[in-house]
Amino acid sequence: MFDDVDLVHQALPGLSFEEIDISTNFLGKKISAPIVISGMTGGTEELGRLNSIIATAAEKTGIAMGVGSQRVALERSETRESFAVVRRIARDIPVIANIGAPQLLRGYGVRELEEAISMVEADAIAVHFNPAQEVFQPEGEPDYSDRLLTVLSEVIKSLGVPVIVKETGTGLAMETVSKLRRVGVTHFDVQGAGGTSWVAVEMFRGRRRGNWKWRSADVFKGWGVPTAASIIETRFAAPDSFIIGSGGIRNGLDGAKALALGADLVGMALPAMRAAVKGAEALGEFVEDFKFQLKVASFLVGAKDVRDIKKTPLVISGKLRDWVTSRGLDLSVYTKVRAGRA
Amino acid sequence: MFDDVDLVHQALPGLSFEEIDISTNFLGKKISAPIVISGMTGGTEELGRLNSIIATAAEKTGIAMGVGSQRVALERSETRESFAVVRRIARDIPVIANIGAPQLLRGYGVRELEEAISMVEADAIAVHFNPAQEVFQPEGEPDYSDRLLTVLSEVIKSLGVPVIVKETGTGLAMETVSKLRRVGVTHFDVQGAGGTSWVAVEMFRGRRRGNWKWRSADVFKGWGVPTAASIIETRFAAPDSFIIGSGGIRNGLDGAKALALGADLVGMALPAMRAAVKGAEALGEFVEDFKFQLKVASFLVGAKDVRDIKKTPLVISGKLRDWVTSRGLDLSVYTKVRAGRA
Amino acid sequence: MFDDVDLVHQALPGLSFEEIDISTNFLGKKISAPIVISGMTGGTEELGRLNSIIATAAEKTGIAMGVGSQRVALERSETRESFAVVRRIARDIPVIANIGAPQLLRGYGVRELEEAISMVEADAIAVHFNPAQEVFQPEGEPDYSDRLLTVLSEVIKSLGVPVIVKETGTGLAMETVSKLRRVGVTHFDVQGAGGTSWVAVEMFRGRRRGNWKWRSADVFKGWGVPTAASIIETRFAAPDSFIIGSGGIRNGLDGAKALALGADLVGMALPAMRAAVKGAEALGEFVEDFKFQLKVASFLVGAKDVRDIKKTPLVISGKLRDWVTSRGLDLSVYTKVRAGRA
Amino acid sequence: MFDDVDLVHQALPGLSFEEIDISTNFLGKKISAPIVISGMTGGTEELGRLNSIIATAAEKTGIAMGVGSQRVALERSETRESFAVVRRIARDIPVIANIGAPQLLRGYGVRELEEAISMVEADAIAVHFNPAQEVFQPEGEPDYSDRLLTVLSEVIKSLGVPVIVKETGTGLAMETVSKLRRVGVTHFDVQGAGGTSWVAVEMFRGRRRGNWKWRSADVFKGWGVPTAASIIETRFAAPDSFIIGSGGIRNGLDGAKALALGADLVGMALPAMRAAVKGAEALGEFVEDFKFQLKVASFLVGAKDVRDIKKTPLVISGKLRDWVTSRGLDLSVYTKVRAGRA
Ligand SMILES: Cc1cc2nc3c(=O)[nH]c(=O)nc-3n(C[C@H](O)[C@H](O)[C@H](O)COP(=O)(O)O)c2cc1C
Ligand SMILES: Cc1cc2nc3c(=O)[nH]c(=O)nc-3n(C[C@H](O)[C@H](O)[C@H](O)COP(=O)(O)O)c2cc1C
Ligand SMILES: Cc1cc2nc3c(=O)[nH]c(=O)nc-3n(C[C@H](O)[C@H](O)[C@H](O)COP(=O)(O)O)c2cc1C
Ligand SMILES: Cc1cc2nc3c(=O)[nH]c(=O)nc-3n(C[C@H](O)[C@H](O)[C@H](O)COP(=O)(O)O)c2cc1C
Repeated sequence: MFDDVDLVHQALPGLSFEEIDISTNFLGKKISAPIVISGMTGGTEELGRLNSIIATAAEKTGIAMGVGSQRVALERSETRESFAVVRRIARDIPVIANIGAPQLLRGYGVRELEEAISMVEADAIAVHFNPAQEVFQPEGEPDYSDRLLTVLSEVIKSLGVPVIVKETGTGLAMETVSKLRRVGVTHFDVQGAGGTSWVAVEMFRGRRRGNWKWRSADVFKGWGVPTAASIIETRFAAPDSFIIGSGGIRNGLDGAKALALGADLVGMALPAMRAAVKGAEALGEFVEDFKFQLKVASFLVGAKDVRDIKKTPLVISGKLRDWVTSRGLDLSVYTKVRAGRA
Repeated sequence: MFDDVDLVHQALPGLSFEEIDISTNFLGKKISAPIVISGMTGGTEELGRLNSIIATAAEKTGIAMGVGSQRVALERSETRESFAVVRRIARDIPVIANIGAPQLLRGYGVRELEEAISMVEADAIAVHFNPAQEVFQPEGEPDYSDRLLTVLSEVIKSLGVPVIVKETGTGLAMETVSKLRRVGVTHFDVQGAGGTSWVAVEMFRGRRRGNWKWRSADVFKGWGVPTAASIIETRFAAPDSFIIGSGGIRNGLDGAKALALGADLVGMALPAMRAAVKGAEALGEFVEDFKFQLKVASFLVGAKDVRDIKKTPLVISGKLRDWVTSRGLDLSVYTKVRAGRA
Repeated sequence: MFDDVDLVHQALPGLSFEEIDISTNFLGKKISAPIVISGMTGGTEELGRLNSIIATAAEKTGIAMGVGSQRVALERSETRESFAVVRRIARDIPVIANIGAPQLLRGYGVRELEEAISMVEADAIAVHFNPAQEVFQPEGEPDYSDRLLTVLSEVIKSLGVPVIVKETGTGLAMETVSKLRRVGVTHFDVQGAGGTSWVAVEMFRGRRRGNWKWRSADVFKGWGVPTAASIIETRFAAPDSFIIGSGGIRNGLDGAKALALGADLVGMALPAMRAAVKGAEALGEFVEDFKFQLKVASFLVGAKDVRDIKKTPLVISGKLRDWVTSRGLDLSVYTKVRAGRA
Repeated sequence: MFDDVDLVHQALPGLSFEEIDISTNFLGKKISAPIVISGMTGGTEELGRLNSIIATAAEKTGIAMGVGSQRVALERSETRESFAVVRRIARDIPVIANIGAPQLLRGYGVRELEEAISMVEADAIAVHFNPAQEVFQPEGEPDYSDRLLTVLSEVIKSLGVPVIVKETGTGLAMETVSKLRRVGVTHFDVQGAGGTSWVAVEMFRGRRRGNWKWRSADVFKGWGVPTAASIIETRFAAPDSFIIGSGGIRNGLDGAKALALGADLVGMALPAMRAAVKGAEALGEFVEDFKFQLKVASFLVGAKDVRDIKKTPLVISGKLRDWVTSRGLDLSVYTKVRAGRA
């Protein structure tokens, strides 16, 4: 749906390219650009290697990164090193720990989360939600009951770092954001539909392995709140929250649109993974290209920093317009809301 | 037009998958899911066999079923067994008798309908309307005059079971629903455009057999109120009625959209037929897949039962939005109307 | 743009097919259906033969017909017979004489028009407007100055039969209709864009013959007010006028849409020509198919006659909706306007 | 986006073709049509030849022309002749000098601009803005700071001829126009997106030459305010300014739409270049075709001159409609605004 979003070119941006400063603060640290490489679990034998590649590139380019789900490390301590390596390499950047929301219903609490955090000396912990994927897993009997809210509310109070509620490719909607906000969640990573589809992944896996659910996964492979819509919904439902716009972000222009739509930071997983398998240098180059594109978009809309990008005029058309209207959101009011705390 | 409808994913559904209960009450009986296999007449030699296959699968999976037009059985008693077999197999589920509306103008009355009902110990009788098909049949001189309303009003009062007014693939519109409602019809099966097109069938038949009407059937093959629009129109015109959403429903996600649009139950014919020709097991599997998909959609929008699905947020876009606007219907009001008696 | 118009199927039309009577009055005569075969000049050697074919079929099927431009007959009397044949064959139906609007600025007046009328004992005379074609003709220096209004106003007062202002494939717009109405024009034949394009014809001709204007004709080949929009514009600008909906009408469903949009009659040229070259029987069959389709549409929307079709609900979507909105026309009001004098 | 604009055909234009006079005044001179060939730098060895071809054709057809950037001539005097030739050939028409906006920040002032003007005895000087291109040039560190406004304001006061602010293919937006208007800019050449894309050119160049920025140029190749939108934005922001509609204008129908949207003149670069490489005659023919098309459009909407075209009804649909709505512009008001000073 990023095709349904246009930024408005300013022939006289009112600044020089070199003036632009897209650095931002995230989790108390300054990063060179509002970018985070979203948490990813690789194949386990690979995991340590990929994490160190990502950490190397992220530290060098000065952006944030998340690690993939640390459940494995909490359960099998011999795998901890594959996560711990991250902080040894990436000393200065924000690192985000990661755990699945369902674990919070299966006994995990403050202790386990603190362990995950300390494993990478994390600046925040992402609690990822993936009901759409779990439901298609062979023996998935996913539990996402509202008791999660109670647990979340408790851990938020006890942990030393913020909790980021993070989707994994099917997006956050107003209703969910409102519920989470009420129990104190202040950081959201929307990870909307339009990028990596875990439902599609389960469909392929299931078909290969003869899991009957694959036929149903096929029906739902386009399911989810599109990223552009999800950023708008999240900002409307939690005007003062910190929002990571993500899911299908592929270049700095998408990134700039996400920021203009109301995100504070943009996240990417798959494209980072694709570059990372070629090595830290390839990933570094990808990130630098992305940053350059973000700066170009800033320059051409006349925004000297991220705060400005978040106030830049927006053109919303086609299906995204219908989506927003259907959801009762008033785009003319949105310009005042979307900049968040900026 | 189901592409113009989106349900909204909730990352925190607020329930566990196993909690979801999509069972519902239909015609005084509890069924495992809000699904009915719509009435179909097969080739006559096949009829009994297909009806027993459908009955077997429906009974096993605990959903409702209709039989095809029973006119043949009323006129040639030797064919009654091919219908009667249904109730012998399907003892517990709602079974719907079926008769064509035009017969009510050609002499059928309470007696004939009661005979059709008792033949399958039916819980309701569907009176099917197919003016669009009849008009293209070789010697069709279809009669759908308003005298039908008088006859309907009478049989509704006299019969022991509800009468369901059922289209056959070109949908119900507000104006028709209003007229029917005024004479006491409380059950509607919309069978809108977008699935099986009987006009297209008559076009192919006519071309093969040299019926001059085939050229005209070709012109009308896309005719009809699309199912999504038809559900909305029916619910607006008869807010407190029982509505079956049907016509082109192909999987449980379509089904969930139909329920969210205002249907109480969803119906299918062709896909059930396609599975049935492979046997009761294949049909059973199809139904179980459908139920699973319906549960997945419920889960992912955070609906613990059918009542909740009917209140879930909806995104309406494209041509469906234009349709509804053209018809003077206010979508912002609709959210209050669509849940019906739920 | 007929794709942007939907009629609304009524499962209970409230009538029997045989009850439907699509006969109508046109120019004081009763015709079997609201259809006119628009005036066409063929190749001159062919002209008489085609006119007699069309006359034969029109008389037999009981619809109206127009003849092509009679200028040739007014200027070369030996060609008169090719027109006069029409009335000898078609004794009972409305026949429309035809003359080009530019002739009214080049000296033609009441006398010439009366001659054209008496040549075919016409019930009306069409004054055709084709500025878009003329402009691309080799030596075209088209004159369509407002003096035409004065001449029209005079002939309207003096002639014994109505004058029909007729476009030839690029449509009538509100502004033009308003001007014409003010000088007393009461009959309009919109002939909008979407069917035969004379600009395209001139493009092909010009390219073949080396006329430099062909490149420009190519640019304008889609030019014109689309028929659906043109009917709406004409009805808005002249609510009480008699409107022929035409231009790209290809079957009775298009025809029914044209009537529902506000036309009193529908016209066709090219498809009639295509059938006519095969003979009167082929043309008769085409007309009967068209009438059947018109009756089918009437039946399925529950309209027992043309008057009812003109009040039937309409769905307007896509570009046609944008057109009408851009033109400041309020569709919600239109339902009251469109039926005209019906 | 010109596909989203329709002019409205008038079957009775109320004028004769020969009456139409599309001549207009531009920079105090009368030209035969509201057309300017936009400034273009060719390959330097070619430059003089192309400029003399364009000058020959422009003078002969009586339209305006601009020269390409004169920076080279200001810096290397031996190249001046390649510009000066223009005025020697084109004695009577408006000629526009050309300089890049960034030069105004790098030391150019009244003196240099006067030199550029006198070099071609220019009637105006275009200051071109191309931040989108510069940003992708190998060592581009583009400076478009607001100090440009101060410099512009000064030169506007001191120069004897008007300054035209001209984009180069990515368009002018309201915000930029407002800023420029406040410092006294009264002439705008929108050069919007939809025609020649300099970003695409830099992408191809960069890929060939191994400039890493090519990947990012690829991302931005569709960037810019579409010409149709840009004309509307400029007119809204500077209602009384003189506006050249340009960028992707390819024929006289596009041209007429640009005028109807609010432009006072239309400009073209690439198509003129394509014709010019075949010689002055080919370019002359192209211009005459364009003028004919402009006259045809005028004729068919019933506009006897440019002033009338600017008031002709407009149909705005699709994405352009969404663009305008998103930008908070009210199309119903626009009809009053767009004609500018006309
Ligand atoms: C290989 C791979 C592994 C992933 N593993 C995790 C994970 O462990 N935890 C998590 O929260 N998200 C995980 N994700 C989801 C991503 O963080 C992200 O939400 C999703 O891929 C959408 O973003 P994208 O379109 O940029 O890829 C993974 C994604 C990929 C591609
Ligand atoms: C083979 C077949 C036979 C049918 N026979 C009947 C019938 O006898 N009575 C009836 O009311 N509908 C009949 N129908 C219509 C269906 O009930 C249903 O309205 C229509 O097929 C649209 O639903 P679908 O798109 O799911 O197929 C028949 C449909 C099929 C495919
Ligand atoms: C072969 C041919 C000849 C025509 N000659 C005339 C004519 O002499 N006078 C006239 O008013 N219209 C003439 N027309 C225009 C038609 O009446 C009509 O306006 C146009 O073809 C659009 O309708 P259609 O799309 O149904 O063809 C002619 C059309 C055709 C195809
Ligand atoms: C070959 C070429 C050279 C150009 N050089 C200049 C230039 O020197 N100065 C300038 O202001 N614009 C220059 N332009 C930009 C054009 O004036 C114009 O803004 C752009 O091409 C968009 O218009 P079009 O789509 O009609 O080509 C050039 C364009 C072309 C095609």
